[in-house]
Amino acid sequence: MNPVTTIAVSGAAGQISYSLLFRLIAGDLLGQERKISLRLLETEAALPQLEGVAMELVDCASPLLDSIACHQDPGLAFRDADIVFLIGAKPRSAGMERADLLGMNAKIFAEQGSALGKMAHSDVRVLVVGNPVNTNALIAIRNARGLSSRNFTGMTRLDHNRAISLVAQRAGVSTAAVERVTIWGNHSTRQFPDLYQARIGGREALEVVGEDWYEETLIPGVRNRGAEVIRIRGKSSAGSAADAALGQMKDWIQGTPEGSWTSMAVASRGEYGIPRDLVCAFPVRCAGGVWEIVEGLALSESAERHIRLNVDELLSERSLVEHLL
Amino acid sequence: MNPVTTIAVSGAAGQISYSLLFRLIAGDLLGQERKISLRLLETEAALPQLEGVAMELVDCASPLLDSIACHQDPGLAFRDADIVFLIGAKPRSAGMERADLLGMNAKIFAEQGSALGKMAHSDVRVLVVGNPVNTNALIAIRNARGLSSRNFTGMTRLDHNRAISLVAQRAGVSTAAVERVTIWGNHSTRQFPDLYQARIGGREALEVVGEDWYEETLIPGVRNRGAEVIRIRGKSSAGSAADAALGQMKDWIQGTPEGSWTSMAVASRGEYGIPRDLVCAFPVRCAGGVWEIVEGLALSESAERHIRLNVDELLSERSLVEHLL
Repeated sequence: MNPVTTIAVSGAAGQISYSLLFRLIAGDLLGQERKISLRLLETEAALPQLEGVAMELVDCASPLLDSIACHQDPGLAFRDADIVFLIGAKPRSAGMERADLLGMNAKIFAEQGSALGKMAHSDVRVLVVGNPVNTNALIAIRNARGLSSRNFTGMTRLDHNRAISLVAQRAGVSTAAVERVTIWGNHSTRQFPDLYQARIGGREALEVVGEDWYEETLIPGVRNRGAEVIRIRGKSSAGSAADAALGQMKDWIQGTPEGSWTSMAVASRGEYGIPRDLVCAFPVRCAGGVWEIVEGLALSESAERHIRLNVDELLSERSLVEHLL
Repeated sequence: MNPVTTIAVSGAAGQISYSLLFRLIAGDLLGQERKISLRLLETEAALPQLEGVAMELVDCASPLLDSIACHQDPGLAFRDADIVFLIGAKPRSAGMERADLLGMNAKIFAEQGSALGKMAHSDVRVLVVGNPVNTNALIAIRNARGLSSRNFTGMTRLDHNRAISLVAQRAGVSTAAVERVTIWGNHSTRQFPDLYQARIGGREALEVVGEDWYEETLIPGVRNRGAEVIRIRGKSSAGSAADAALGQMKDWIQGTPEGSWTSMAVASRGEYGIPRDLVCAFPVRCAGGVWEIVEGLALSESAERHIRLNVDELLSERSLVEHLL
């Protein structure tokens, strides 16, 4: 890496980015020594507001902020990027069909993937946050000529963290004691939070929390947590999503804790029978700056069944955007 | 300090708090070793939304978050507090007179000051962020029996950081090279950004940036920056305000950089001829966890004049809330 790390963020005037950007220039991702050049990407309509965000970032007087620029052209935003957060995506609006939503976002991520392939560093790390995460990541990967699927991960970390928090609360322990939780599949209400491998302070997690609680409370609890936050807070998760994005990127760069793993949506090479190239959430270890799917875990029958349902959903999403792959 | 630090935040469902809270549990203030018990204070109307914020904080799975509670009673929120951010304040609404605004906030800060005096630790550090900062801080101090004015500072750091950033941009240097800037007076458009003592990379700042630019661009630029952000971003500063609050509290706890200082609104003991007990922004050094006004600086005639205007404004604010002191 250069003495200055170039970080690009799409959807930069949105709420998740607003929670992320100040933390980037405070050193929460790369520490107190590394300078950062920020490249902020937005639609033309949001550029004025983005200029206001840029003013506030400058107003922090952070010695880590080397430069800042606002763009509406992904090619300019991604030039020489080392780290990219793809946060911007079209939200579903009233009367919009699922296929419409997938199609509109597919276009955005095809264009951004193509720009990344042309302009970003060959070792760029791209974290896809905008929904539908898995299929957006798939499209970006396919359109990023010159990069490989190893340059991309999709965010599953918020679901992963939610599962850990709920388990820790149930067990009355610190979140630090909960290890080897996995989120499998699609970042949708079909996702599968897997505690079969999980440990709480060295004990089997399912023994501690109980199978009934796991199936009746944890699984639906994690799947519906995002909707619950919207219902109670009146807005979708932003601060916790930005925290998860930082956590996932930090693990990718610095490595996952010894003996445990995290969950990331990454391109399959056929692991666990999941079709090659599909972007699916897996248990993932990171070391030396690269991610690797944790292989050889024994899946329960229930896990196998849930994972198949996720694969079906991912294949159906893929079929709707086939023309862009 | 205990192994767990209790941090209370008022106005906890608001935008500045939303930018602050996730950073607190990420260790941005107290580092990666210290656990935090969060006490969130809001009005009854905002409690449901605050519960949503609390959910998101839990969803970060931070091993530093020991506990979290939402309160509408300041006495409960401030019990055994080590660190307090008083962020919540009534904003000015259409048709409201300045005296009305001062009066409404005075009531809030009188009640909170009183609760702090009864419930917080005797070495609590209270940072007042809600506007009008200086007069709110004055009222809180006067109502906090058992605490001293040394337990309180009012936030001037955002103005301070804005001045540093604008000077650094003008000089084409890193913000780290700009030292000994002071914001004097009231946190209002009358505040006085003082470059007479400032240094840029060891040189006299005024020589580098020019006196004309200082008077015609910097002084009004810092004073109007908040309004500019609102005009361009469409919302008032939140991420940069939270960053400034963290910066001021961190300096208070850990100390200001050797050879330089920061700006804080603190109770006068008559320094620089400013009436005793008035809460005014001064150059402040911190060491050993306590703040201290930097004395003995030679003030220019222009600085003297500006500071007098600020004192007049502060005295007039005080006269409007005299009954609560």
